[in-house]
Amino acid sequence: MRPHTIEAEASGGGADVEEAVEPSTLRHRQKSAKESSSHAVAGEEDDALGSVEQAFAGQAVPTWREQLTFRAFVVSFFLAIMFSVIVMKLNLTTGIIPSLNVSAGLLGFFFVRLWTGAIERAGFLRQPFTRQENTVIQTCVVSAYGIAFSGGFGSYLFGMSEVIAKIDAETNTPDNVKDPQIGWMIGFLFLVSFVGLFALVPLRKIMIIDYRLTYPSGTATAYLINGFHTPEGARLAKKQVKTLGRFFSFSFLWGFFQWFYTAGDHCGFGSFPTLGLQAYKNRFYFDFSPTYVGVGMICPHIVNVSVLLGGILSWGLMWPLIHNKRGSWFSADLGDGNLQGLQGYRVFISIALILGDGLYNFVRVLYRTISAFLTMVRKHNTIPVFDEVSAAPTGEGLSFDEERRMKLFLKDQIPKPIAYAGYAAVAAVSIGTLPQIFPELKWYYILLVYVFAPVLAFCNAYGSGLTDWSLASTYGKLAIFIFGAWAGASHGGVLVGLAACGVMMSIVATASDLMQDFKTGYLTLASPRSMFISQVIGTAMGCVIAPCVFWLFYKSFDVGKDGSEYPAPYATVYRNMAILGVEGFSKLPKHCLTLCYVFFAAAITINLIKDNVPIKIAKYIPLPMAMAIPFYIGPYFAIDMFVGTVIIFVWSMVNKPEAEAFGPAVASGLICGDGIWSLPQSILALAKVKPPICMKFLSRTVNARVDTFLGN
Amino acid sequence: MRPHTIEAEASGGGADVEEAVEPSTLRHRQKSAKESSSHAVAGEEDDALGSVEQAFAGQAVPTWREQLTFRAFVVSFFLAIMFSVIVMKLNLTTGIIPSLNVSAGLLGFFFVRLWTGAIERAGFLRQPFTRQENTVIQTCVVSAYGIAFSGGFGSYLFGMSEVIAKIDAETNTPDNVKDPQIGWMIGFLFLVSFVGLFALVPLRKIMIIDYRLTYPSGTATAYLINGFHTPEGARLAKKQVKTLGRFFSFSFLWGFFQWFYTAGDHCGFGSFPTLGLQAYKNRFYFDFSPTYVGVGMICPHIVNVSVLLGGILSWGLMWPLIHNKRGSWFSADLGDGNLQGLQGYRVFISIALILGDGLYNFVRVLYRTISAFLTMVRKHNTIPVFDEVSAAPTGEGLSFDEERRMKLFLKDQIPKPIAYAGYAAVAAVSIGTLPQIFPELKWYYILLVYVFAPVLAFCNAYGSGLTDWSLASTYGKLAIFIFGAWAGASHGGVLVGLAACGVMMSIVATASDLMQDFKTGYLTLASPRSMFISQVIGTAMGCVIAPCVFWLFYKSFDVGKDGSEYPAPYATVYRNMAILGVEGFSKLPKHCLTLCYVFFAAAITINLIKDNVPIKIAKYIPLPMAMAIPFYIGPYFAIDMFVGTVIIFVWSMVNKPEAEAFGPAVASGLICGDGIWSLPQSILALAKVKPPICMKFLSRTVNARVDTFLGN
Repeated sequence: MRPHTIEAEASGGGADVEEAVEPSTLRHRQKSAKESSSHAVAGEEDDALGSVEQAFAGQAVPTWREQLTFRAFVVSFFLAIMFSVIVMKLNLTTGIIPSLNVSAGLLGFFFVRLWTGAIERAGFLRQPFTRQENTVIQTCVVSAYGIAFSGGFGSYLFGMSEVIAKIDAETNTPDNVKDPQIGWMIGFLFLVSFVGLFALVPLRKIMIIDYRLTYPSGTATAYLINGFHTPEGARLAKKQVKTLGRFFSFSFLWGFFQWFYTAGDHCGFGSFPTLGLQAYKNRFYFDFSPTYVGVGMICPHIVNVSVLLGGILSWGLMWPLIHNKRGSWFSADLGDGNLQGLQGYRVFISIALILGDGLYNFVRVLYRTISAFLTMVRKHNTIPVFDEVSAAPTGEGLSFDEERRMKLFLKDQIPKPIAYAGYAAVAAVSIGTLPQIFPELKWYYILLVYVFAPVLAFCNAYGSGLTDWSLASTYGKLAIFIFGAWAGASHGGVLVGLAACGVMMSIVATASDLMQDFKTGYLTLASPRSMFISQVIGTAMGCVIAPCVFWLFYKSFDVGKDGSEYPAPYATVYRNMAILGVEGFSKLPKHCLTLCYVFFAAAITINLIKDNVPIKIAKYIPLPMAMAIPFYIGPYFAIDMFVGTVIIFVWSMVNKPEAEAFGPAVASGLICGDGIWSLPQSILALAKVKPPICMKFLSRTVNARVDTFLGN
Repeated sequence: MRPHTIEAEASGGGADVEEAVEPSTLRHRQKSAKESSSHAVAGEEDDALGSVEQAFAGQAVPTWREQLTFRAFVVSFFLAIMFSVIVMKLNLTTGIIPSLNVSAGLLGFFFVRLWTGAIERAGFLRQPFTRQENTVIQTCVVSAYGIAFSGGFGSYLFGMSEVIAKIDAETNTPDNVKDPQIGWMIGFLFLVSFVGLFALVPLRKIMIIDYRLTYPSGTATAYLINGFHTPEGARLAKKQVKTLGRFFSFSFLWGFFQWFYTAGDHCGFGSFPTLGLQAYKNRFYFDFSPTYVGVGMICPHIVNVSVLLGGILSWGLMWPLIHNKRGSWFSADLGDGNLQGLQGYRVFISIALILGDGLYNFVRVLYRTISAFLTMVRKHNTIPVFDEVSAAPTGEGLSFDEERRMKLFLKDQIPKPIAYAGYAAVAAVSIGTLPQIFPELKWYYILLVYVFAPVLAFCNAYGSGLTDWSLASTYGKLAIFIFGAWAGASHGGVLVGLAACGVMMSIVATASDLMQDFKTGYLTLASPRSMFISQVIGTAMGCVIAPCVFWLFYKSFDVGKDGSEYPAPYATVYRNMAILGVEGFSKLPKHCLTLCYVFFAAAITINLIKDNVPIKIAKYIPLPMAMAIPFYIGPYFAIDMFVGTVIIFVWSMVNKPEAEAFGPAVASGLICGDGIWSLPQSILALAKVKPPICMKFLSRTVNARVDTFLGN
């Protein structure tokens, strides 16, 4: 049940802003991802140019049981923990999750090679490392750490907590608040994370073989893995792992070094007023975070520029202006963090942008999906969904690659009864058990979700096959509004909305992710059965690992506090959407609603313009969703990301092939090292080991006062 | 009148600690200098392997007048200012001056090439850029910025000032203090800086041709310049200049960035407790100074390790132990900066080490000089000094190179009457005028110096020709003790000692430097006459530029304050030597004299061991003189230098040829950029523009107090 936001960006090209990167950008990214994973052979469409499978023809394909090795799951387990920590950190700092598939792929490849190498030297190697096994690892790891994102620890799940609820007194009632507890979180995840796996399994042949959907991310991942298993690909991968390791160490040690200087609030490099104290007050500063420099290196330039633009527009222009209206637009007594004051503008204008962008793209993708589907139905004069028993298309002169892939894809079937029974069983248990966790979430709400879910899941899987764009979190937001309003404030509507969002998102996202994985398996000759089992195991791992990792962060740091290291911005955003759904616009401060309308309209207009001008111009038009993130938490990470974008830009100028081959490795190293540092950091915090020094930044006059004070 | 300490280290191999790097190290450095300046042809001795001059045979040698171009002196003037600023900064921070000849050479070559390139494109080029002209520039620039060191702004001259005199109340009397004034400083330098130039001019043929002295630094410089003027040398130089420029910019911008965070004492990166607050209190920290990282990259590993060892021994071990003896060894009421307290141990133990090392090497070099000289006298059965009219040695089968060099070296003579008359005239003016500046410095003291000076100058020039080691500052220290004691405390003995030191050092140093330059000229076919004129002009430039640069620092910063950015450690050391000479040991705190004897003996012993064990072991024995520097100012710069040494070590491991070709360029860039930043920095300070922010480092408890204080 991996969020599409991660999976979709599969191969090193992009990062996602919740779900907000538009398809054209993605397609561009896929292209560069393919290039950067150094395959001479390009996408599936280019098979005519050269056969991938002919290069692998000498290697026997292991059976599906052989593909599922013990070592694969051991390696997956450790990588899953590692990436869960990293994703959790990203979740709780900004909510921007770049694609970690390249690093997961590289490290998976590296560790199994290490393992097999050691055993081989010892003379015990029974089974060589194949690309099918590699695909199993990749699928398992991505499934597992995907839960760290789709579990909503940075959004709906943590949005239920009291920390976030505090910002609005009226809905801060016991039936609208549910504080995180490790027990119910694991239970909840187990209940919602497997439904999606069963929903679309029967349709995999139709999507992959009959419709020949592209699934760009799945394709890119497959080419990455195929590449590792060619001799020159393995050599390059070795170098990339070395680069990754070097930057990993640097980033980790830098995190460790920084830690010593953070004894207190606004201490250390994370509070470095790099652009001056005045800019720092408006959250403009470079915070020396390798993570977001790395994120900036992975994200396309336009995302980074959009985020920075959004930051300048909001914290550089609008918030200072609105701040000056204190006493007129809102009470001057309210602190900057009060939702009736400045904070209200920050949160609700972000929501307006996110919803505007989301709605536009929802409509657009739905329109494209339906029209493409209708064209196909008209052509075949039948609805192909029910045409599954038809044989593989044979009349088209299949290439060697296609024939071989199809043969293996159709070899191991997942019996349909298992899929249907699985869906029914999991749904039944969910309907029975979820109300135990959320008493306000009535059983008929859940039943309704599970009735419509397969259709929505199909739409999403089909749409993402065409456009590589999963709309899972948009479906989730729709659920917030529908079920929140249905339940009403007095019946825990806020909590119901958030919980329903979780259920909906999980199903819809997993369905499309599953198809991406099947596509990867199709292209690497991995058995659909082993893929499915790997995903089930990975999801189960994630359901345990993710809540534990979240718990570690939650207990160690001030998660959810505005202006802290872990503000968890989307938790606030999601909860406020739920409040909006339940309470309407009544609570917004003066003129806030007007501004929200303006930004909602602007998001749609910008998207419309972007889709209707030539690509040459369109690529310079910023993305509204990306612009929305700094609105709430401030532009400091945007500056980090911009630094990353500049590094990649300059590097590409100087040496383009090197930048493309090693840029993602450098970025992954930076992200992973800093992310993993939060593991020892949180352990230190739990053990109450406090850093010894505060690196403080004072203005000259304040410094003189402090010196006088300390002199006495 | 360049200090040998700079000149001797000529070509990128070494740095000097006042004058303390022992010859074997130096020779090693010369070797690497030659390698690093990328000449396939090695030292003069290797001429048999290949002829340098045959490569240049097609190029006509310009006449001596043609070698002295206008553009050469314009470029020299600007480079002289630049390097004077850099050397002054080094002088006033630690007194460690690394060799800047490579950077001076590179930049001189680069700027004239730029100049001629521009004019050539315009079609006005009358004269191509030759290696002779390059030698003229090099000589002029090194002469000029040499004054910034030998002028004693970091040692004897500034040691006369009230800032330094304050540390000892008893000798802080009007007749022992002379505060810096730009007028008398320029006058003093003009009076003492030219004598040495005339003293040994008549002997140049004997030293260079008859004795065939090596002058390793002069030789290395010549090979550097010859290298620039071969096609592949020019290409490499271009790349090196680019590297230098890149690191120059980085270092400059870093200095600029740092500046913003230094609003107050102990603010900014220069006070970063990198190793913790406890270590910071004992001055163990990495202060983010690119200068000393660069210095560390140029200095041989053993120098850097020695400095660090000295720092650990003193600030890590001895001073904390002695600090614990407060109340027993010295009054507990005395501040750490009081000479009767802890400061006394710091200063006098440093002096003991410096004197022990200096004395040992003085004796050794003198012994070697005399014995080598006597051997030659015995062989020729005549004292060759007076044999100047003898023709060039012809019976030995001269190589092509030697013949050509000799011919050109003997072509342009400097008439002997000019030399003798010049010496007499400058000496007479000095004797008449110096007592006007220092009334306590009687005319007969000066006369005595000038009578013995030529002999001492000859000894030093001969010794440095053999060993590459100028003992100028040891002669200067002898002068401090002799003339200080002679005058006595009541007759301004301290001031007399320091002034006499200046006169003596200038003569002796210039003499050996002149010979090094003649050797360079000999090997690049530059005319001795143009070399001499270039040196006169360079010295005159230096006599004006250096005091002006010092004045800028003196007016802008807290120069001479212990623990500040510019502690000028050798000013304190020199003044205290003078006080020792005048007052004896009476004022030392308890046990200090015993410790001084121990360290004096240790310095001699270490040197003795170093000279009598195989070179394999000797190269791991630290240098006492290098160990002495951190004794007074603390080991923070030693940590910077150690970082530099590690960088070069690792770089050499990874890619030795690249490290050797570009290491000096990177180091020069770091040193020059940071050094030049002090120019705008001092202008900002003069204009009373203060940095806006203080980056402060507080312990956790103090930070809590400050937060409470600021919260109220």
